[in-house]
Amino acid sequence: MRRDRLAIAATLTAIFSADLYFVLLPKLRTFSHGSGEPCSCPHSNATMPGLVMPLLSNWTSPAAPSLETSTAAYKPEEDAGSKLERLFAHPLYNIQTPALEAEERLLEVELLMEYYKKKVSRWERHMKIYSEAAAIVNISITAPEATFDPDASWVKFHLGINRYALYSRDDPSVQQLLRDMKSMKVINADYTQDEKALKGACDCTQVVKPSGHHLKLALKMSNFAKVMFKPMRQQRHEETPEDFFYFVDFQRHNAEIAAFHLDRVLDFRRVPPVVGRLVNVTAEVLQVTQNDDLRAVFFTSPANNTCFFAKCLYVCKTEYAVCGRPDLLEGSLSAYLPGLSIAPRLSIPNPWIRSYTFTGRQEWEANPFYCDTVKQTYPYNTGNRLLNIIDMAIFDFLIGNMDRHHYEIFTRFGDDGLLLHLDNARGFGKPSHDEMSILAPLTQCCMIKRSTLVRLQLLAHPRFRLSDVMRESLELDLLLPVLTEQHLLALDRRLQKVLRAVQRCVRRLGEHEVIATDFIKSTLRPHTAPQTTTEIKPAR
Amino acid sequence: MRRDRLAIAATLTAIFSADLYFVLLPKLRTFSHGSGEPCSCPHSNATMPGLVMPLLSNWTSPAAPSLETSTAAYKPEEDAGSKLERLFAHPLYNIQTPALEAEERLLEVELLMEYYKKKVSRWERHMKIYSEAAAIVNISITAPEATFDPDASWVKFHLGINRYALYSRDDPSVQQLLRDMKSMKVINADYTQDEKALKGACDCTQVVKPSGHHLKLALKMSNFAKVMFKPMRQQRHEETPEDFFYFVDFQRHNAEIAAFHLDRVLDFRRVPPVVGRLVNVTAEVLQVTQNDDLRAVFFTSPANNTCFFAKCLYVCKTEYAVCGRPDLLEGSLSAYLPGLSIAPRLSIPNPWIRSYTFTGRQEWEANPFYCDTVKQTYPYNTGNRLLNIIDMAIFDFLIGNMDRHHYEIFTRFGDDGLLLHLDNARGFGKPSHDEMSILAPLTQCCMIKRSTLVRLQLLAHPRFRLSDVMRESLELDLLLPVLTEQHLLALDRRLQKVLRAVQRCVRRLGEHEVIATDFIKSTLRPHTAPQTTTEIKPAR
Repeated sequence: MRRDRLAIAATLTAIFSADLYFVLLPKLRTFSHGSGEPCSCPHSNATMPGLVMPLLSNWTSPAAPSLETSTAAYKPEEDAGSKLERLFAHPLYNIQTPALEAEERLLEVELLMEYYKKKVSRWERHMKIYSEAAAIVNISITAPEATFDPDASWVKFHLGINRYALYSRDDPSVQQLLRDMKSMKVINADYTQDEKALKGACDCTQVVKPSGHHLKLALKMSNFAKVMFKPMRQQRHEETPEDFFYFVDFQRHNAEIAAFHLDRVLDFRRVPPVVGRLVNVTAEVLQVTQNDDLRAVFFTSPANNTCFFAKCLYVCKTEYAVCGRPDLLEGSLSAYLPGLSIAPRLSIPNPWIRSYTFTGRQEWEANPFYCDTVKQTYPYNTGNRLLNIIDMAIFDFLIGNMDRHHYEIFTRFGDDGLLLHLDNARGFGKPSHDEMSILAPLTQCCMIKRSTLVRLQLLAHPRFRLSDVMRESLELDLLLPVLTEQHLLALDRRLQKVLRAVQRCVRRLGEHEVIATDFIKSTLRPHTAPQTTTEIKPAR
Repeated sequence: MRRDRLAIAATLTAIFSADLYFVLLPKLRTFSHGSGEPCSCPHSNATMPGLVMPLLSNWTSPAAPSLETSTAAYKPEEDAGSKLERLFAHPLYNIQTPALEAEERLLEVELLMEYYKKKVSRWERHMKIYSEAAAIVNISITAPEATFDPDASWVKFHLGINRYALYSRDDPSVQQLLRDMKSMKVINADYTQDEKALKGACDCTQVVKPSGHHLKLALKMSNFAKVMFKPMRQQRHEETPEDFFYFVDFQRHNAEIAAFHLDRVLDFRRVPPVVGRLVNVTAEVLQVTQNDDLRAVFFTSPANNTCFFAKCLYVCKTEYAVCGRPDLLEGSLSAYLPGLSIAPRLSIPNPWIRSYTFTGRQEWEANPFYCDTVKQTYPYNTGNRLLNIIDMAIFDFLIGNMDRHHYEIFTRFGDDGLLLHLDNARGFGKPSHDEMSILAPLTQCCMIKRSTLVRLQLLAHPRFRLSDVMRESLELDLLLPVLTEQHLLALDRRLQKVLRAVQRCVRRLGEHEVIATDFIKSTLRPHTAPQTTTEIKPAR
């Protein structure tokens, strides 16, 4: 009885404190600003200086570049100019990575060139046969102009992939790849390999995802670059209905674009390059595809727009059709990673996977000590893997993505390579909701990479402010505005929640238990301990 | 060449005249009113007096009650009070139908009572077995209180159905039925027979309708009344997307309600009674159903609302789920017609059926002389059938329903019975669009029942005004506003277009060719020629 009463008292105190901290204090602050609306003017310093500054000053390791000098002396008038440029010029974003050993690169130049040359000649043979077959039935086909250039941006992107990141910070070929994807001529369109594997059957084993997710297509550019096209399904202002489960939510092309920018701003570089583009579905899909099944799902709508729909074996989902205006349709174009035959990947279930049924609950949702089990389980009991999972959770929490059921790694790098953050189209669905359960890996394990933390702190500082650098970064895309203002401001609010979660862990367990030294340390001293990176364990 | 030029000149002249008449003239009128918005004040006399008045005065047969006296002396100040009451008090709505012969009634009292008593005892036996089976597995079931009353409103509704209409104008049992449907306790819920026939398979033979249309349920009330429940799928302000084909459009519960009211206001009485109701999907569906398949599609949404979804054999369409708040869900409840075993019906393809494919076109869309063929084809070559089809086209044009692929008749009444206007949920989708092709039966055949025409003219007159009587009629429903103001005003605009179409026909062919004398004449003189009604042919 007494224990019960104690527990109740403790819970009430916790609720009251939380209420005081999260509800009353911010309200008081807002009132003292004299306005009921959140202040978005660049001069306000609303990002809880009391919270951010101590983290910045106390937690930055002596080895890391001093943040104190750059932020403590912050004056709002410095805000003029590009915050994004200032961010990327910051010492934290200019740490030299160690010179890469051959085995730390994903691909070998000679092998890759041979592989792609084979692919190109196969394509040329195929086109010849296709044109000849067409000529027999008296259809003249002009084979599209296609040239393989070993120096093409997409080839360089593939060659640049290494065990730390998909691309390096200052790689000009990634900029070039973004430009190429925006404008290059499309010479072929087809279903993706996933869909072909399904052969038109919907995967109905469990609760079925909307057939709408079968609408992604693979496009080939005139320099043989391959991209995945996800068409627009939803207007920017539309939100995920509250009754939707995460696994039936639409895929959003703008979420795919914004996730790439956020990943780069966070300096993770684990999302392949993505751009927005107005695709002409007639000229760039219908007229260039050689797949009869794909051609068969095209139709002209009552409003005379060109549309196509997802086709499962048993249902033709015309109500899921997407339509151009009359041919132009917004979409995201994501660069393909190197093919699985040359760069195999593993898809691994997320230890914090959700139940993909209506009622099921996973262990992590009920057991607050779930992380203890994970920590003892291979591969999370060694190396950076668990810290990488926590990075991913922070990323997913910021974008609001509940659908990270699996993650992928390149087999070449073994257990310590980067985690790929693919398929982010279910992010950015509810700007006014912060789904705290996505942060479970962080809040349950109470650990975070020091390098991640300092960058988060930097982005919480008004001198950079996540929403400002994201707004600026997204302005580079053709489909602006990629995100509504509400989604941008949600990023700041969620970032504060991440930092508060870390702060609570530190208060409970102490800094040394929570903040893990990862390879940022070794790369800062490349000559003293470059090899330790493979062996680094969480600092606990 | 010369003929071509002539044709072009004629076309251009027609386009110019149409433009002048439909675009320029109304604009000029609007400008002269000094406002860009359509005037909806009760005192404006904007319903084209020049058009309506001659129709009213010239076309009303001497036998019909004189409209001239009631409309020519119209003063706006008379608008006070109920327009709906005034409409229903109008002589046109008080014509005595001839005394019904036994064979003109759908059902015989004794037979019907026997039929329903059998059904009731079957239900009681079933409930007994069900309770006993439940008791074996230790579940106690309180069999819901259910009493069969031979004087119940729904029984009276069934008994009142005759060859002219589903109910008579002044039948108090229909008013009682509407009240009962609004409030009576639900004792059972199940899939409808249609769905059971499908056995969970989606009909994928052609282009598939959204599985959403499988969401209608049959509810049984505590007095054994049976109704069809169509849940809300769409907010009132939402419109059918322009790229949707009519056959994939959502079904709208409010369209079902509004169609019943419109049908009654038009004095057709060919739509079974419909009311709106907030249904508790937990207490009134989940907890009372005995169908395990139906129970299995219920789930609790992330927002803690009770939802259920359509289930096809191969797809579980959770994204089509409908959800209560947390249990209450708006829906339409339509009274069931007597069962097919006691009152068989025929479902007949609409001669003006549309193509249910993306590209197909039907003959009537291309051939302006299509009606000549129809007129020579049984059963349209005799009796009122074609005039009934034209009534239906006018009704569908007013509600904007493009999905009338079939119509139904009671076999008992042979070829001259009423046409049933069932399934109107695809109406009221686009308030700003008037789909002229729905009027094809009228514009291609150029004929209309005199009785229909005079009522349309009456409803175009400011003293009644269709939108006003509809607004008033719909206020009787619990789910007000059933229609947005935009939809109500669309009714007036479309009514004008119907009258203009008739006027064009009269100008071209003369009144005697166009305006068909139907049974209104005979009923006005019940003692002189009551039998002629079965033999009446279009007056041409």
